[in-house]
Amino acid sequence: MAAAVEDSSNVSEAYPMTGGDGPNSYAKNSIRQKLVVDAAKELLTKTIKQNLDLDICLPCDTFHIADLGCSVGPNTFLSVENILEAVKFEYQSRGLSSQIPEFQAFFNDHTLNDFNMLFKSLPRNRNYYAAGVPGSFYGRLFPKASIHFFHSSLAVHWLSRVPKDVTEKTSRAWNKGRIHYSNSGDEVVRAYQAQYSEDMECFLHARALETVHRGLVVLTLLGHHNGDSHSLGNVTVDILGSCLMDMARKGVVSEEKVDSFNIPSYCVSPQELEVIVERNGCFSIEALETLVYHVPEHGAKRSASTMRAATEGLIKQQFGEEILDELFSLYQQKIEEQISIFESKKSVIFFVVLKRKTN
Amino acid sequence: MAAAVEDSSNVSEAYPMTGGDGPNSYAKNSIRQKLVVDAAKELLTKTIKQNLDLDICLPCDTFHIADLGCSVGPNTFLSVENILEAVKFEYQSRGLSSQIPEFQAFFNDHTLNDFNMLFKSLPRNRNYYAAGVPGSFYGRLFPKASIHFFHSSLAVHWLSRVPKDVTEKTSRAWNKGRIHYSNSGDEVVRAYQAQYSEDMECFLHARALETVHRGLVVLTLLGHHNGDSHSLGNVTVDILGSCLMDMARKGVVSEEKVDSFNIPSYCVSPQELEVIVERNGCFSIEALETLVYHVPEHGAKRSASTMRAATEGLIKQQFGEEILDELFSLYQQKIEEQISIFESKKSVIFFVVLKRKTN
Repeated sequence: MAAAVEDSSNVSEAYPMTGGDGPNSYAKNSIRQKLVVDAAKELLTKTIKQNLDLDICLPCDTFHIADLGCSVGPNTFLSVENILEAVKFEYQSRGLSSQIPEFQAFFNDHTLNDFNMLFKSLPRNRNYYAAGVPGSFYGRLFPKASIHFFHSSLAVHWLSRVPKDVTEKTSRAWNKGRIHYSNSGDEVVRAYQAQYSEDMECFLHARALETVHRGLVVLTLLGHHNGDSHSLGNVTVDILGSCLMDMARKGVVSEEKVDSFNIPSYCVSPQELEVIVERNGCFSIEALETLVYHVPEHGAKRSASTMRAATEGLIKQQFGEEILDELFSLYQQKIEEQISIFESKKSVIFFVVLKRKTN
Repeated sequence: MAAAVEDSSNVSEAYPMTGGDGPNSYAKNSIRQKLVVDAAKELLTKTIKQNLDLDICLPCDTFHIADLGCSVGPNTFLSVENILEAVKFEYQSRGLSSQIPEFQAFFNDHTLNDFNMLFKSLPRNRNYYAAGVPGSFYGRLFPKASIHFFHSSLAVHWLSRVPKDVTEKTSRAWNKGRIHYSNSGDEVVRAYQAQYSEDMECFLHARALETVHRGLVVLTLLGHHNGDSHSLGNVTVDILGSCLMDMARKGVVSEEKVDSFNIPSYCVSPQELEVIVERNGCFSIEALETLVYHVPEHGAKRSASTMRAATEGLIKQQFGEEILDELFSLYQQKIEEQISIFESKKSVIFFVVLKRKTN
């Protein structure tokens, strides 16, 4: 029997990046994310050189790439282009130029992602066939053993949902006065950890079925170093939370709404990730290293725009559209006041390479 | 070398159906098109029974269906469901239940199609993996030999462009005072015929590369019977043209704009189609028959809505959005006046089955 496709819409919340190409859009405000794509390019090329078996796309002779959490561009196109070029280069350098396959790239994100914008901005002279795939990457998206190379850049820190306990007043994990586990109590951290672990199990279970044997899954992930306290946290999210609390004190938003609002993202440690991958059992970890990237100082205004493009969907849902301008203007102001702390606390990003075992 | 993907955006005009789910949307005004999908179901099932070799999806073990010119739903989902059910039934009835493959459906339409709407309305409990593929079906859309079953319902009558000669004042094919070849001069008909022939050559060339050997291409096409005069034409397009001319006489639109406006669609005859398929050489014609379908009398209002959802994109481009209400109100009125002629002139639709030769 053909497997019934799981309906991921029931189990996963959607918080797409801001669509379109307006001044607040993700397309216009994802320059930081592009720096990560650029920084990962060299590692990606090395990974393909060291870990890719070129015969995996036989017998069908098309190389299938999927970018998970692609959003609306342009970074997703750069990633796909980097992968494609590195794969082609390997064929050439191994004397197999005549066997270079055709490429098909699948761009995946939540159903509510702005695919119209994505498709309109597809590069004109691309060397691959393009398709959009709607749905949560915590469920099945592709047929069995059909993808040779999965890629995801700065997307798998988004949880499938806010951990239930942190929103419940009666729970010991109730996250009052905060919007994240960062700098919060242990119970809150544990609730986030449990959700991440559960989500990554679903993620790896689905990818294990979809990846061809000896195929690769390459992820760049927001993380934290082994042993680092969660109180180090994410300074940007902390600042956003404090802005919302300020607005609650002024009566612009209700305190209750802030208490029940939580950003569904988690920064994993290498140790945690290793445990999850080993428990899944279908992948070997070929690399797990810290990504070295350079973020030029580009000031509070651009930082506020980047944050807005990534979170305004979530915030709108909880507080309504009308608070957005005030919130992000306050956010920008706070970043300006703390610019030196802000710029010294660079996010930790891991570059992870998983290879599908042959079982 | 990987083939460079042709950039179809340079060679093909886009006139997507009206997006969204508002009162004028295609999604809400494609009931006539649904009747054709329903009417084709039995022939589709018979086609699959008689012509489908079940081993064509080996060795990759996924059955790939592509619906070309899918628009925004819901008809495209019905077509895919009908194909999927018939293929599954064949496995079952041939005692191969345990070998039923997974299904992946590719929904294709122009880049400007409302894919966001399409993805939002995907059936929740579908038994296939879904992907959207933007681009003109007159160019390449898929990797070599990757699709087992192509389908297209009432889409391949749309030309890739308005035939150039019919818009040029100096040409003998200049189509003054009309918006279609229907009831027009021989030169105009010939210009449309030449464009159709050129487009279908591109269509078949691309499909021949993309279809697996022994795979099927099933089309429902607007047509006309061998030997029928083109002056019989398409009564709905004639009426739309006469409305525009009325509006030109009243000075609401410029006459020049009406003269240079032409609907880029063509109704092919079986004879013409046979010539084109034979010239291409890669497909055998397994069936080419007239589709029997029943259109209930549903009055002028709905007919006007159907026409509007399919053509308002084109009209807006030429005349601006502000004429749409007046135009389609006039159109509805004219249909009401001629309801008996209108209802007696049912479109001719052909059901065509092509099978990819093994060469």
